[in-house]
Parts: sequence; C-alpha cells; structure tokens
Amino acid sequence: MKPRLLDPFAQEYKQLLDTELRTLVEKLNAPPIIKESMIYSLEAGGKRIRPLLLFATLDAFGIDPHRGLPAAAAIEMIHTYSLIHDDLPSMDNDDLRRGKPTNHKVFGDAIAILAGDALLTYSFEVIGKISAEFASPDALIKLIIEMAKAAGTEGMVGGQVADMEGEGKSLTLQELEYIHIHKTGKLLRFSVVAGAILAGASQSQLDNLSAFAHHLGLAFQIQDDILDLVGNQQLIGKPVGSDTANLKSTYPQLLSLEGAKDALQRQINLSTEYLRETGLNTNLLEEITDLVATRDH
Amino acid sequence: MKPRLLDPFAQEYKQLLDTELRTLVEKLNAPPIIKESMIYSLEAGGKRIRPLLLFATLDAFGIDPHRGLPAAAAIEMIHTYSLIHDDLPSMDNDDLRRGKPTNHKVFGDAIAILAGDALLTYSFEVIGKISAEFASPDALIKLIIEMAKAAGTEGMVGGQVADMEGEGKSLTLQELEYIHIHKTGKLLRFSVVAGAILAGASQSQLDNLSAFAHHLGLAFQIQDDILDLVGNQQLIGKPVGSDTANLKSTYPQLLSLEGAKDALQRQINLSTEYLRETGLNTNLLEEITDLVATRDH
Repeated sequence: MKPRLLDPFAQEYKQLLDTELRTLVEKLNAPPIIKESMIYSLEAGGKRIRPLLLFATLDAFGIDPHRGLPAAAAIEMIHTYSLIHDDLPSMDNDDLRRGKPTNHKVFGDAIAILAGDALLTYSFEVIGKISAEFASPDALIKLIIEMAKAAGTEGMVGGQVADMEGEGKSLTLQELEYIHIHKTGKLLRFSVVAGAILAGASQSQLDNLSAFAHHLGLAFQIQDDILDLVGNQQLIGKPVGSDTANLKSTYPQLLSLEGAKDALQRQINLSTEYLRETGLNTNLLEEITDLVATRDH
Repeated sequence: MKPRLLDPFAQEYKQLLDTELRTLVEKLNAPPIIKESMIYSLEAGGKRIRPLLLFATLDAFGIDPHRGLPAAAAIEMIHTYSLIHDDLPSMDNDDLRRGKPTNHKVFGDAIAILAGDALLTYSFEVIGKISAEFASPDALIKLIIEMAKAAGTEGMVGGQVADMEGEGKSLTLQELEYIHIHKTGKLLRFSVVAGAILAGASQSQLDNLSAFAHHLGLAFQIQDDILDLVGNQQLIGKPVGSDTANLKSTYPQLLSLEGAKDALQRQINLSTEYLRETGLNTNLLEEITDLVATRDH
C-alpha cells in the first residue's frame, strides 16, 4: 500500500469529523439554545490534533480510519468542553478564542457551563454507541474507562487544578511537567491509545504507542514555550527571560533556551524510538512528530 | 424470604454508600483540593433517594443490593455535580444548601466548576469498572449509554436549560412537565432502570419499572409543589395562589390545589399499577411510593 501524505489525509478527516460533530448534536432532542451553544464551540476551528492522532494511529494498523469517527468526535467534545469551562470568567476569563467571542460571551455563563457539561456527558454516550462491528464490548469498556481517566482528576481536570494553583508561583521542572502531562498530555495520549484499542493492538504495541504519545505531548509543550519566547523576541524585541517578571514558568525559563531546545530534541527522539518499536506503518504519525519538532507557529 | 422494612434497609445502604463515595474519591491520585471539594459536596447530606431506588430495585429481584454500590455511587456523583453547578452565581446563585455553605462559597467558583466536572467524569469511570461478576459487558455498555442520556441534553441538562428559559414566564402544564420529567425525572428513572439492568431484567420488566419510576418522579414533583403551598399557608398564612405573583409555575397554580391532589393520586396509582405488573417482590419500592404520596416535608 502506498503511504499516505499527512496534508490531504488531515484535510479529508477534518471534514468528515466536522460533519460528524454537527450531525451528532443536531439529532439531539433538546432545547435549541443548548444545541446551538454546543455547535458554536465545536465549530470554532482548531487544529483537531487529537482526532488526527487517532485517525493516523488506525492508519498505522492498516485499518480504515473511518472507524474512528465516533471516538474522534467524543475526544473532540471533551477537548471543546474543557475550553468552554476554562474560558469562563471565574477561570481564565477569556473573551476571545481563535479570534471568535468565547462561548459565554455569546450565550451567557449559565448556558456555557451547561454546554460544557452537555458535551462531556454526550462524549460518553457517543463512544458507548460505537458499533459492535468496530469494537468488542470489552474494548468499548476499556475505551470508556481510559477516556474518563484521561479527562478526570487523574488527567485533564487534575492538570487544570494544578495549573490554577501554580499561578503566580515559580514552579520546579517537575511541577511544570505535572501540569503539562495532565492538562494536555493525557487526552493527547488517549487519542493514540483509543486508536490502538480500536485496532485491537497487542499489549506491547499499546505500551509503545502510549509512550510515543506521552513524549510527543511533552515535545509539543516545550516547542510551545520556545515559540512563545522566540516569537516575542522577533515581534516586540522582548529579551529572553522576561517571562520571569510575571512569574510564568516555562521550559526556557527553567532550562535556558538552549536547554529547552535540547529537551525538545530528547522528547522527539524518544517518541520516534517508541514509534519504531511498534513495527507498524507509522509514516503519518512520523509526519505529525516532525511537524511538532519543526513547526514555527 | 421475609420482606425487608424500608427504614433499616435505607439506613444500612446509606451508610454503605457514604463509605463507598468517600473511598472512591480518596483513592484518586489528584491534587488534594479537588478531592476535598468533591467530598465536601458528596457528604453534604441529602436523602439519597436515587441510590435507595436502585438498591430497592435489586432487592425486588432477590439480588443482593451490595452489587449496586458502584452504580449507586455513580448516580449520586451525577446528582451532586448537578447541584454544585446549579448553585453557582451564574446559575441559581445559592449560598446555602441544606444549611451548609455551597461548594463555591467554600472553594471558589473555579474549583466548584471543576469539582462538578470531575464528579461527572468519574461517574463514568466508576460505572465502567463494575465487576464482570455483577454485569456482562453488554449490560455495562447499556448502563453507560442510559446514564449519559439521563444526565445529558435529552435528560437533566435539557431540563435545567428549559427551567432557566422558563424563569419569570407563565408555563403551560406541558412545559412544566417537560422541565420536571427532564430535570429530575430522567435520573430518578435511570436509578430504577440501572437496578433492573444489573438484575438482568426481561424487557417487559424493564419497561414496567421504567414506567413506574417515571410516574413516581412526577408524583414526587407534584407533592413538592403541594407541600410548598400548604407549608407556606401554615407557616406564614400566605393565601393559595400567591405564587402567581412571582410567576413561579406550579401544579396547584395550574390545576388548583384540589386538581393537584387529584393529579398526585393519579400518578401514584399509575406507578403502583406498573409496579404490580412486574410480578416482583416490590415491597420496598411500594413503601417508597407510599412515602412520596404521604410525606409531609
């Protein structure tokens, strides 16, 4: 089979996912305002990196990525709910996300809270309804448990709490990693693990893919911090280290810019090694890894 | 087997549930503050009517109600999350619940939102982990889907949205019933249905128990409205119908007090009939129904 290129693959499945998300919400028998609010944030754009990881993982097993649509939709619903709640006045108090007014600015705080609740709840219904052709009942239960863990206090919610508690404090490298691994890492990792579970991966493939995604997630965060710094320097000539002033802990601040670049390379190497261990056709996942390492925005 | 009496039964299982809830949260590997916040609201008291319905349903099938502990804990987590979010300043803005400061008054709005999110998410992990001795994988998936539907936009969240949208408006009986059936009815019904699924009920038993719980839920709400009115009369001599002034729609307001009492009796009769159809040993469920019909507070 000819290896697929990431760009057209990503475009094709992003479109399929967008349609799936809209269809899933539209068919709900519920007050129109809550459906509008859910769709508003689901369609607010975004890179859809989590669904892409899931689809690319299925492709690595030679399985039609279409099978991953409901699970990808469920994961994107959880990601979207977390953004809606994070943006609330009592949390990060953001008025804009990707240039669009945030959910609560359009629908009010009460509907925004409920839209988040609704998306989180619906994600479990959507994943629970995956056809028996695509996943055995045991695989489905495993998916559900892993998704709840990735999203809950031992995952995303725990990371958000730690992030809030760390605000205005100078963090250790260990504390910074705890936040990243939990707040964003666990759901990214679940996206890959979900693909592996749906594909009927062996335990060692599951372990290797899980480790791959763990290191990829850390690489992503380190590159984020580096870009923030380099971007700022080019844009407003802010000197390296000025983040220290507002006590925002970042990798370059804790490790120096060179140290952060080394750490990034180390995480990329580790993720690539784990990927190789799987013995699968991982060209799409490799392209995603390259993108993370070399992206400039 | 000698039929059990409701009072000691309720006390025994309330205690077991309290221990189960605390144990489930304590074992989470998460920032202490979020666990404290979750436990604070889980232990804020309450009648535990949903778990009791689940335990009593298992008893009706002659099955040890202990088996229902994880499912009962999951349902109580969902109920508790909904109270935490409903009490928030942007929702009902309540400072007290059952005489105790509400979650956000103690932990702040951000942690309260996250504690609600965490409880909702954890409920799916807890129910997903029910031992294979107690439920087949297919039964478990059915439980998960039904729980998500009862809690989401087609259930509790949808009812809360409709309730908010109806504020300050004069509702029709149909609109009032939509709110009650969804906001509280669906999760009450799921509590009975969950017991039936765990017990391996036949489809007709499932249908009858579901109808029983539906009518019991409505009876509960009608009695609530009646007690509000009668309680107020005894307490402050407020005349019947004064609720009309603040446009709060209630059964007595829409049907008159006598009409509401008739409606209550009709719902009680219906629930009792459906219960009888099951052919099970439903003495505990009957006692609960009697309590709803005759309770004075």
